[in-house]
Amino acid sequence: MPKKNIPQNGYVHGYSARESERLADQAQTLTDLLHHDTHYSAGSQVLEAGCGIGAQTMILAKNSPDALITSIDISEDSLKRAQERIRKERITNVTFHQGDIYHLLFKPESFDHIFVCFVLEHVADPMLALKQLLPLLKKGGTITVIEGDHGSTFFHPENADARRAIDCLVELQRQGGGNALIGRQLFPLVTGAGFSNVHVSPRMVYVDSSRPALVEGFTRLTFTAMVDGVAEDVRKHGLMTKDAWERGIAALYRTAEDDGVFCYTFFKATGYK
Amino acid sequence: MPKKNIPQNGYVHGYSARESERLADQAQTLTDLLHHDTHYSAGSQVLEAGCGIGAQTMILAKNSPDALITSIDISEDSLKRAQERIRKERITNVTFHQGDIYHLLFKPESFDHIFVCFVLEHVADPMLALKQLLPLLKKGGTITVIEGDHGSTFFHPENADARRAIDCLVELQRQGGGNALIGRQLFPLVTGAGFSNVHVSPRMVYVDSSRPALVEGFTRLTFTAMVDGVAEDVRKHGLMTKDAWERGIAALYRTAEDDGVFCYTFFKATGYK
Repeated sequence: MPKKNIPQNGYVHGYSARESERLADQAQTLTDLLHHDTHYSAGSQVLEAGCGIGAQTMILAKNSPDALITSIDISEDSLKRAQERIRKERITNVTFHQGDIYHLLFKPESFDHIFVCFVLEHVADPMLALKQLLPLLKKGGTITVIEGDHGSTFFHPENADARRAIDCLVELQRQGGGNALIGRQLFPLVTGAGFSNVHVSPRMVYVDSSRPALVEGFTRLTFTAMVDGVAEDVRKHGLMTKDAWERGIAALYRTAEDDGVFCYTFFKATGYK
Repeated sequence: MPKKNIPQNGYVHGYSARESERLADQAQTLTDLLHHDTHYSAGSQVLEAGCGIGAQTMILAKNSPDALITSIDISEDSLKRAQERIRKERITNVTFHQGDIYHLLFKPESFDHIFVCFVLEHVADPMLALKQLLPLLKKGGTITVIEGDHGSTFFHPENADARRAIDCLVELQRQGGGNALIGRQLFPLVTGAGFSNVHVSPRMVYVDSSRPALVEGFTRLTFTAMVDGVAEDVRKHGLMTKDAWERGIAALYRTAEDDGVFCYTFFKATGYK
């Protein structure tokens, strides 16, 4: 799920106030599914590589209140917003640094654990990014990587315009140097970067009308709002006509009705040094 | 996953000896994922609607050795094979009857539980089939429905010919009156048929090279073999050229290599009367 502001990949999404609110809703809804099994012990040094505006930082810090978290991002603006957010929550175990994931200036073996969430989808060479992180980890330390995969999306009722609208999102992210289909690739990426005992666990968000919080929090406010957020870029690039696009968006909202179903899968990988 | 022999929907798959073996492999690999949470109490009357050649019947009977299972199928030939299979395993708590799922001749409220696995995908009117089953269930009894969904398939490396090959399977099943995308529809179907408190649980088969039993048992021997099983029909119907088809099948086998990943989702629904 896009949330980072990594300039070299261009702006796939806007960062308006409405967008920030949507991202907060998403983080709330998905916290348990993605983070319930990540807890770092007291005193352990944790690197969050690519913290964006701090949505995952808050969750990390709350789930591991006695770990010492270092959160980096390439964007000064995002870092400021992340810092503000953490300050407001009175969280005190996070330190922020500006830095490029390809060239971090920490000493080798500085960290017990590394955490990378919704970052690799925006990075032009995700394997290189992971390779650059490996030396920063102590022997026996862990890496945790979480990514979505837009190609995992399916829904009922089926609709060709809705599929095309999602494909536009994938195409725009590709043009920006990112990869919206990266979730399925975590095993070869983390293994290929030199980590061992890699385990990947898919986390499907399954939504039907018996789960109203997900209908609202995921199908409408997260996924469909995210797709609709690139409407202008899609028209600018001539990827879909206005009519087809609007039919596609309407069809995505249609899956949030009583007899609709929506499925999306995140992937969580863990590996060791 | 296709395994039933329901004549009104035509033959999407062959039933050669090799096919039977493949189906046995699949049943073995997927048993835990699909069936670990289905156990019926001693003395309870269970209807298996659409038992085919008995692959699920064996699992049902073994998981609930003291329940009394009645397994029906429309095909006399399939029933004979199912009976033979059950006899060989020395299972004694299953009774077989020939019957049409739309017109079963049991008295109302004959059963404590109903079990329907890999059947609705082959049925022209699955909602009607479920509606016809409802009166056979006692008040407070449960229904369990399991189906696959070919549209849930995604893999790495991505390949357009492989996607088209899978679409051919979906198209052939549609032409035969079935629906290979039915898994995602279980919630509206079971709810719409009049069952209450419907709960759907997706069961993703996630395969990477750290899970060699699934690479062999699912990616190769189940899914790709199943797709390749319709090669002749695809050519007969002119759905894909021979070259493109072969590239597609090769690309599916490619996902079973060390850096490949394969994902497929089954859906399990439970509901009450």
